[in-house]
Order: sequence, then C-alpha cells, then structure tokens
Amino acid sequence: MIVILKEHPDRTQLDGLLQWLKDRQIDVHPTVGAHQTILGLIGDTSRIDIDLISALDIVEEVKRVQEPYKDANRKFHPEDTVIRVGDAVIGGGSLALIAGPCSVESEEQIIGIAKAVKESGASILRGGAFKPRTSPYAFQGMEVEGIRLLLKAKEATGLPVCTEIMDVSQLPLFEDIDILQVGARNMQNFSLLKALGRTRKPILIKRGMSATYQDLLMSAEYVLAGGNPNVILCERGIRTFETYTRNTLDLSSIPSLKTLSHLPVIIDPSHATGRSALVPSMSCAAAAAGADGLIIEVHNDPPHAKCDGPQSITPAAFGKLAGDLRKIREALKGGGYR
Amino acid sequence: MIVILKEHPDRTQLDGLLQWLKDRQIDVHPTVGAHQTILGLIGDTSRIDIDLISALDIVEEVKRVQEPYKDANRKFHPEDTVIRVGDAVIGGGSLALIAGPCSVESEEQIIGIAKAVKESGASILRGGAFKPRTSPYAFQGMEVEGIRLLLKAKEATGLPVCTEIMDVSQLPLFEDIDILQVGARNMQNFSLLKALGRTRKPILIKRGMSATYQDLLMSAEYVLAGGNPNVILCERGIRTFETYTRNTLDLSSIPSLKTLSHLPVIIDPSHATGRSALVPSMSCAAAAAGADGLIIEVHNDPPHAKCDGPQSITPAAFGKLAGDLRKIREALKGGGYR
Amino acid sequence: MIVILKEHPDRTQLDGLLQWLKDRQIDVHPTVGAHQTILGLIGDTSRIDIDLISALDIVEEVKRVQEPYKDANRKFHPEDTVIRVGDAVIGGGSLALIAGPCSVESEEQIIGIAKAVKESGASILRGGAFKPRTSPYAFQGMEVEGIRLLLKAKEATGLPVCTEIMDVSQLPLFEDIDILQVGARNMQNFSLLKALGRTRKPILIKRGMSATYQDLLMSAEYVLAGGNPNVILCERGIRTFETYTRNTLDLSSIPSLKTLSHLPVIIDPSHATGRSALVPSMSCAAAAAGADGLIIEVHNDPPHAKCDGPQSITPAAFGKLAGDLRKIREALKGGGYR
Amino acid sequence: MIVILKEHPDRTQLDGLLQWLKDRQIDVHPTVGAHQTILGLIGDTSRIDIDLISALDIVEEVKRVQEPYKDANRKFHPEDTVIRVGDAVIGGGSLALIAGPCSVESEEQIIGIAKAVKESGASILRGGAFKPRTSPYAFQGMEVEGIRLLLKAKEATGLPVCTEIMDVSQLPLFEDIDILQVGARNMQNFSLLKALGRTRKPILIKRGMSATYQDLLMSAEYVLAGGNPNVILCERGIRTFETYTRNTLDLSSIPSLKTLSHLPVIIDPSHATGRSALVPSMSCAAAAAGADGLIIEVHNDPPHAKCDGPQSITPAAFGKLAGDLRKIREALKGGGYR
Repeated sequence: MIVILKEHPDRTQLDGLLQWLKDRQIDVHPTVGAHQTILGLIGDTSRIDIDLISALDIVEEVKRVQEPYKDANRKFHPEDTVIRVGDAVIGGGSLALIAGPCSVESEEQIIGIAKAVKESGASILRGGAFKPRTSPYAFQGMEVEGIRLLLKAKEATGLPVCTEIMDVSQLPLFEDIDILQVGARNMQNFSLLKALGRTRKPILIKRGMSATYQDLLMSAEYVLAGGNPNVILCERGIRTFETYTRNTLDLSSIPSLKTLSHLPVIIDPSHATGRSALVPSMSCAAAAAGADGLIIEVHNDPPHAKCDGPQSITPAAFGKLAGDLRKIREALKGGGYR
Repeated sequence: MIVILKEHPDRTQLDGLLQWLKDRQIDVHPTVGAHQTILGLIGDTSRIDIDLISALDIVEEVKRVQEPYKDANRKFHPEDTVIRVGDAVIGGGSLALIAGPCSVESEEQIIGIAKAVKESGASILRGGAFKPRTSPYAFQGMEVEGIRLLLKAKEATGLPVCTEIMDVSQLPLFEDIDILQVGARNMQNFSLLKALGRTRKPILIKRGMSATYQDLLMSAEYVLAGGNPNVILCERGIRTFETYTRNTLDLSSIPSLKTLSHLPVIIDPSHATGRSALVPSMSCAAAAAGADGLIIEVHNDPPHAKCDGPQSITPAAFGKLAGDLRKIREALKGGGYR
Repeated sequence: MIVILKEHPDRTQLDGLLQWLKDRQIDVHPTVGAHQTILGLIGDTSRIDIDLISALDIVEEVKRVQEPYKDANRKFHPEDTVIRVGDAVIGGGSLALIAGPCSVESEEQIIGIAKAVKESGASILRGGAFKPRTSPYAFQGMEVEGIRLLLKAKEATGLPVCTEIMDVSQLPLFEDIDILQVGARNMQNFSLLKALGRTRKPILIKRGMSATYQDLLMSAEYVLAGGNPNVILCERGIRTFETYTRNTLDLSSIPSLKTLSHLPVIIDPSHATGRSALVPSMSCAAAAAGADGLIIEVHNDPPHAKCDGPQSITPAAFGKLAGDLRKIREALKGGGYR
Repeated sequence: MIVILKEHPDRTQLDGLLQWLKDRQIDVHPTVGAHQTILGLIGDTSRIDIDLISALDIVEEVKRVQEPYKDANRKFHPEDTVIRVGDAVIGGGSLALIAGPCSVESEEQIIGIAKAVKESGASILRGGAFKPRTSPYAFQGMEVEGIRLLLKAKEATGLPVCTEIMDVSQLPLFEDIDILQVGARNMQNFSLLKALGRTRKPILIKRGMSATYQDLLMSAEYVLAGGNPNVILCERGIRTFETYTRNTLDLSSIPSLKTLSHLPVIIDPSHATGRSALVPSMSCAAAAAGADGLIIEVHNDPPHAKCDGPQSITPAAFGKLAGDLRKIREALKGGGYR
C-alpha cells in the first residue's frame, strides 16, 4: 500500500499514523521528495481499511499495491480450483456446458429440455424457480414448485441442477440443489453471501452489472472467507451506453479473472446479449478465450417462454453449437492462453 | 406500446399475436408501409410482459410508449407525495436535512452528533448499524447494538431516525426505526422490496450504481404495489468511467424523477462524491435544483471514523452549510423549476 | 418513425406538422388512444431531422424505427463488402491479419517487423507515423519520416500498409498508403470523414470510446455518402468503469455490426486491452466469433517500444497466435454464425 | 511516480531501469518487502512516458502520484486564471452567461436573439456556424455565412462571440471571433489543439463524452503548452447508461476541476440534458456549485430551430433564469465553496 502525503504534513498527525501502522505490524518506508512524501507500506495490508487512512488530513491519496482479497487470489493459491458436481467438472481446462430454460414452466417442459440438452453434451441443467424481475407485474417464477420440478428433471436425467437463490430465508429449499446461483442484482447482497459461505455448496456468483473484477472477487471472498471454497465466477455482461445488446459481454474477463484468481470462470452469453442470434458466436468466442464453462438459455419454444424468450435458443441450435465448441477446444488443444 | 414487425410476417403467427392482444383488451392499430408494418397498441400495457412479444419470430422490435410503472407514475398521481415522520416533512417543497455518521460507533458519538446536527437544522438523524462493505474484512457495523444506540439518540433529541436494512430477516429489529433505507447494492433485492411493501414505514430507496431512472421507479413500484405508499427516492451517484469522484452524482435526476413521479427525491452527496471537500458545493447545487432533501454524512472526528471518513464533514461545516442551503431556497422562493 | 403526441395536442400545431410531413412525401398513420395519440410515419425517414419534430410543443417523444444510415445498411445492401488491397482481402469470410508496431521507429525496425509478420501470415503491415497521444509531452511519432519508412517496408516486403491520418491537411502525404486509419478519438471528426469520402482509398474507422454501433455506422455513412465505398469498421474497446483493462473489448460488436451492415468488421485486441498477455486469447475469441480480421501490435522489443509497449507482442508470439487462429477458422469451416 | 516490481526481478533489467531514470534526473527510493519491491520516483516525472516503464518485464504496475499536466495544474499556478473578452469576464468568482442559438440561421434571427439575451444579462453571444452532426444528412450549419452573420450580431450588440471551430483549415475564418470552441467530439483532435495553442485566442474546450477530468486537463495542456494561456473548460455531460437525458451532466466537475486546475470552468446544461425543461434547474445548480459561467442555448422559436430545438429555451425563459442565477450568487456571497 502506498500513502501519498500532502505537502508539509502536520508532524503530530504523521507520528500518530506511523504508530498506528506499527501497531498493525506494517513496516513503513518513506520516500521524501521536494514537494511530496510517499510512504511505502510493507506487510499484510489486505485487512487494513483503506478509508481510515484516506480520511486523515495529512493524506492526499492512498493506493493499494496488493489486492484486497486473499482467499480468491491466485498469488496465494496458484493451482486452479476444480469443482465437481455429479459427473460434471468445472475448472482445470474442461468446458462445462450448463443449459436449460430461463424459467421452469412445467414438468413436461423442464424434463423435455433436460433430456435434450443432456443429449447434446450439457453436463448441468439450469432453470429458474425464483425469478428476479424488474417489474412487480412480470412473472416471478414457479417458486417452490419450480424447485420441485427441477429435482424431478435431475432424477429423470441424472444431471446436477443449478438455480438462483434470492434470499437467505430460501436456503432450506435448496438442500438438494447442486449449484446455487447468486444473481447479478444480488452480487453485493452481503447477508446472502455470508449465509452461503456457511454452506459447502458450489456457489455460482454472477458479476453485477457495474461490478469491477475486483468487486466480483471481493464478493467471492465473502463466501470463501466463510469457509466455503466452492465458488464459480460468471460474467454476464456489464451495463454500458450501448443499447443494441442488453448488456456488454466482457470476454476479457476470462483471461483477466483467471490471472487474478484460481476460481473457475464461466460465461453467460444469453443474459449478456439478450439476443438469441448472438448467443452462438459469443459462445464460440468464450470457448476460444479459455472459459471454464458456459451457461446458456435453451427453450423448446422460445416465442412462448414465460420470460427471456428473445435470448433463448432451441435444443437443436444448442446441439449444433455444442459440436462447434468441442471443435474449437480440440483445435486449441496443447495451446491455449491460460 | 409499438410493435415493429419484420418484413413479410408469417400470417398465422400474426393472427395469433392479434388474438392474444385482443384477449388482453388491447386495441391494435396497424400502420402498413412498403417495407415495414408497425402495430400501435392502445390500452393498459403496463402489465404486458414486453419479452413475450419480443421473442416472436415475426417481431423486429417492441418499444414502450407508456411507462411500465403505474403507482409511481406522476401521470396517474399528479400531486406530490409528502411524507411526515415526527416533525420532519419530506416532499412538497420543503428541504429535509438528514444528517449523521456513516456508522454508529458509541452512545456518546451518536448522541453527540445527533444534538449537533439538530442544532444546525437537521430534522432526521441517519446512522449505519448494518453496513454493507465490499470487503468481508472491513468493519460491518455495530448491528443490533447500533440500532439500540440510534434509538437512544432518538430519545435524547426527538429526531426521527433513518438506517439501512440489509435483509428481510432483520425486519423485526427495525420496529422503532422511522425510515428504513434500502442501499444501492440492494435496490433490486426484490425479496426485500416485497417485504417492505407489506409494511407502512417510509422506505428510502437508493438508486443502484447502474440503475436508470426507470429501474429506480420500478423498484419503488415493488414497494408501492405492495400497498406501502411511503417511498422516498435517493440519488447517490452512478458508476461511470470517472475515478476522481467515487461515483458520478447525477443531479439531473432531481427534475427528471420529479417529472416522471410524484415521490420525493433526495440527494446523497457524501456517498456520491466520496470526498468531503465536494459535499458542500454539491449540496448547494441539489438545493438549487429543487431537491426535497439531502442526506449528509456528519462525523465529529472524520479522520477517526470507522468507515467512510473521507466523505464526512464536521458538525461545524454542516452548520455553515445548512445556513447556505436555507439562503438558496429563500432566494428561489416563488420561483423554482419543479 | 413513430411520433408520440402529448395529451390534447394543439390542433393548429398538429395540422402544421402533418402538412410538413406530407410535403416530404411521408405518409402518416395515426393511432388514437384514450390518453395518447401515436403517429406512424411511413416513407424515407432517414433524411428527416428527428430534432425538428422532437422540439414541437405537441410532441412527447419521437422514436426511430428505421435506421438513420442507408449506404451502410445491410437491409439495402445484403451482400458483404469485400475490400482488396494488393494480395490482401478484407471481408467475405476470410480473416485478414494486420500487424506491426504501434510506432515506426527506424528503417531497420519497421522492415524487420514487416518481414517477420509477413512470414507468420500477416497480409497487411500497420505502423504509426502520426501518433495521437494524450500528453503533449509524449512521443508524437516520426511523422513524415515515418510515412517514408513505412513505404520502404512496403517495397521490401510487398505488404500493403495501413497507418493513421489525423488531419485533413495530411492527406497529400498518404498518397501511397494503402489503408487510411481514422483513430477512435477522431471517429466523429466530420471534416476528416468528409475529406476521406472524396478519396477512393480503403478507410479503416475505429470505434470511438463512447460510440454506439449506430454512431460508428453513421461515421461510416459520412465516408460512404461521399462516394467512397471502401470502409472497414474496427472495434477497439469502449470506455467503461472497469480499469483492469485499458478499455472493454466488445466482441458482440462482430455479429451485431455484421447484422446491421455489410461492411467488414475487424478487431484490435491490443488497444482494447492494453495488456499483451490478453491479446492472444482475445484474438482467438474474435476469430471464433467471425471477425473479418485482426489488427495486432507486434514489436521486436516491446520493453523498448517508443509507445504502447505493454500491449505489444513479439513476432514469435504473433507467429504462434497466427497458427492458432487458422486452426480455429478451420475448425468452424462450413459452420459459423454469420 | 511509483513503480511496483514483479517478484524476483531480473537484476540486469533492474540496473538498466535505474540508470535510465538517473539519466533523467529522477531519484529512486526503493521499498523492499517480502514479496514485493516498490520504487518511489522523485523529480519531474510529468514528462516521463509511463508506457515505457510499464512495458518492462520486471514491472508489475506503474502508478502516477504527480499529475501528468503542469501548465494546467493549480499546484503550480495557485491563482485563478481570469479571461477577459470585451466587457465579459470569465473566471475569478464572476458568473459569465454565454447564450444564443445552436445554429445561426439568418441575420434577423441571430441579431434578434443577441439583443434579447444581452438585455437579460448575457455577456457573450454563442451561435453555431460549422455544426458537427452525427448524420451526414442533417443540417451542417451556415458555415462561412454563419460566421459573417455572427460578426454582424457582434457589431449590432457589442457582445463578444463564441463559435465552434471544427478543423485547422478553418482557422483564418475565425480571425474576428472572440472565443473559439472545441467541441466534445474534437476534444482529442490533437492537430487542432496544437494549432490553437499557437494562437492567443480564448479557447473553450468541451469535455469529451468519455473524457475524465485528467483527459480534459491534458487537452487543455496541449493548448497551454503551445503558449496560449487562455483556456476555458466546459462540462457538457458524459455518456452513461442513462437514456432519459441525452448525457449525464457531471456537476462535481466544478469543484473538482477548480481544485485540480486554475482554469475557469463553465457548464453547458443544454447539450448535457438535451431537454429544455431541465435547463433552468441545472443552471441554478451549476451557479450554486460555483461555476464560472454557463453556456445556454436560447432560440426565439425552439420548435422551428434548425437543430437542437428540444434543448433550447426562449429568450423570456432565459430572462427569468438569469434573474434566479443572480439571486443564488447573491445569496452565497461571502460564502461559497471554492
């Protein structure tokens, strides 16, 4: 951590700061210039509250050198985290395909889609039971009944299931769910993250619409610091000024997050683009960039989906896409840029 | 609502759509051009799920004409909503000052600040008990004890109190709190919004860092649709590429939200800018632009605040500022641009 | 175009508007609702100034249905534009590799790199002579001498050359340059675009840091409308709140721009990410998503490059990357999502 | 400047860097930690190319401590820059009102508006002759004839005039223009900035839509470094995800830019919001926040303006607004937050 002091800092305040740092086992190395003094802090600064120092009258600016996350940091955990649920593997060089409808709508629908996507190579089934919707008047999901139907589809196909949890109070309902998803709008719902840190379930955290990589990793850190090592990071588009796509899919997140962290990184091209026509090309791009997986909305009848129809692809399109993804990974075998 | 059809739409699908709309009491007026057909939909389209129509193969694009919120819409509620808590009034032309520390830290601190800000003209006390912090290692607030101390300060000064609720499960703790705040990171925590809609407490909703005015009004709609009419909107800066300020304070939100909605609009210059030096000028700007109130961080000893010290001003600075704000509103009396 | 009228529009003003539209051969189809009247305009609205109508007292909002660009619009030009310079082909399914240093620094440097990248499969040489630099104190390029050395490298290798033009007055110097690049900061330098529209040179237009797809296509339209059909679109990252990468590379631009327009779309992963470590994976992603080409910074000695060293890769890394790109395109042959 | 080295840096490379810095009269103070070494650089680093250092293999990151601009920096020029044109004063505590139509349309129009705004207290006339328009099919301004009419209005009223220059080649036409405006889209047209640095005219630089404060100040630095000290900074809204307003007006720029720089800061609420209804409240806000001036679009007949009608206010509205602005500044006299 670097502390840049204002010109002519008050001596008493400065001494107070130096003592405070010493008490925390931080070594201070000053660089004194004509106009400016810089303090280099050495030690474990990850647990120091940067705001406490910034607020001092004598301080012009504080800059972090070390990342503020530790358990999520590749520097301290060089090996890839690999998460196994049932037969599925996420992380460590494989490409996991998570597929299914935006919302569970009926037993027939969810089992039908589950069978179709399994056939095409998906290893995990997704489907929304509790749906975060911008409008209170929009369909909010089948809720508890949706969870029940998802578990039926799991039974019918053997696929592990992934679905979104919206509130701490829902946790008991998710006992048999394999992967719990934290939605983009809840990425900084710290009450929820803390509760999930107390479980040992795989937690798929979606990047918030205005979250930096560091913000996402800090949310992961909440879960990890709670003792749950099973975190999957998911890029699903960030909010920018561009309105043609629903959000802007940030594929640089793949190599960036994998450099900064050991956690698996998957991509959600469906929510990111909001347009089914863009899903196949963005999926191929993600596979080529080294993603650990994809989460794709597949619906048997997109025009009549109860939500997010415009971004769903059909099982047939998913089948063709899965083939292309395999070819890309095959072509890059032995190479790759991770 | 406007539906723009693709060229040469399939006749059967089009008939299906027309029937579906008719079933929902929507009148359809087609405009047929050489290359394009446009359907104008007339009726109550606020409860129609735009995604259902967008997903159809025959549809190129759907554009809303009418706003998707109803209870929050000034068109249907032309009169300003005015919220009264104790002696404080929010809305309807007054300028409510909500002031206090980022975090409650001790009985002495919170009562001391409460007295000081009351003296200077604040009508509501703020103070964080549950703190949403980006890092799991940062101070998370005094929690239940913080609530207790806030209520002591209320008792000591008669000021109503405002503090943040982070999770549905905390609701019982907030029984004596006057205004419940929903933080920016929870603006789309729909479980929480629904629960708050079942209370009759004033709810102060902070705009999310990447929320549009419409998103914010839709979150308000969740509370209003639940039967709770007491919603206060709060602008606290949006996330942009500029890094000198913590966020970018969007003061155009004041006249814009007040045009779109009847709900009171208050401004949080402390969190928006993250720099105490900018708080006074941005507060004056908000007052001049017609804000219904300000929520300002005031700390007796900013450099030693347990969080957000860099953005807190002292009680003395708050006193001077409150005087300037009164002068601005006095100067604009009889005028104003609301 | 859709015109949404305010409630109870003034009759005289409305008649004035209807007549004005009639004079411009626009047919008007009104949809009259209880609270709102909508006018559907049919005809060639691409040359109607939307602001003229929006400003009317009786108008609440105007929404475009038809795109405001015509010559760049795929609807009117369904066939891919294919641009040929020397032996290089851009557009129509091939993957053109444009490579070279950020800045031309010496004859030895530029000829050396040109030979190396040609060897590895680049079909066009890039190199900056006039450099747009944020700081007036940074190296501004070799200017005229840089152009001369680029042409020497062209002579030595047979590669066509691409370099940036910053001002109309420089045009005579670019007579022998094969592709003229308009930088992101000049994307809306309309004086420059008009001048380039009067040439017949291929013009590579970089997307501005805050330009939408439509903005970029409107800038292309300036060149096309001038009579020059040879425009190449280039995505090079947009400005967002994320700071780990220099900009956020928006790969959805590939399928999106190719849907909206017939012009070739190439990707610049070097400027977008600002980090050489991310260039290979983002290049592979672009190739998998169907880009028509890549423009990549290659420098024989990145640490000593006179500008943008952190984002340049070595000739050896480029050679390996070019091989991987070929494998990806080979793998997707016959498929593809364009 | 702070250089953060990677773990175990190569000794030879490090020695090379240290020598290179020494040659540039930069003192280096190392801070050696267990995992990390930080170099503190002391001396005039404003002219050091940060990219040259970042590109080194041994360097993890470089952070600036000192601002990269010098002539625009308040640290080195503590006194406010005050610019005088005719009777108008910009900077140093006054509030200059620059008003006029978006475009000059006729002699009658421009003289009529000039007289009206002078009457209401404007001290400078604005009016576009060369108009940067997104569409090649939109009205591009009266060009040379527009300049001639502006000068006629200057003659008729005595008001100095301000208008936009789009290209270096237009410079001779602007000989009698008092303030030359650089548009947001040209803020990083460095060829133009350099040319304007060779004049001694006041240059009003509009902040680009995605420009940080630092970017804007670096563009100012181009003019100042050329020897022209007369630069006015203008905030006109930045591009964000919010679409209700054309851009997001960033009023924190007023106290921020005035802290960082000695140059005057003015606000353009018309282009920022794109809605005339928001102009008065945002103007009042800017005045309350300490702006040195406002540039406001005023049109005698907004619905028939040839461009940007939706954001223009009438002379009558401007008159009332000017009165309110005076009252606000009067109310804050002796106080203020600059």
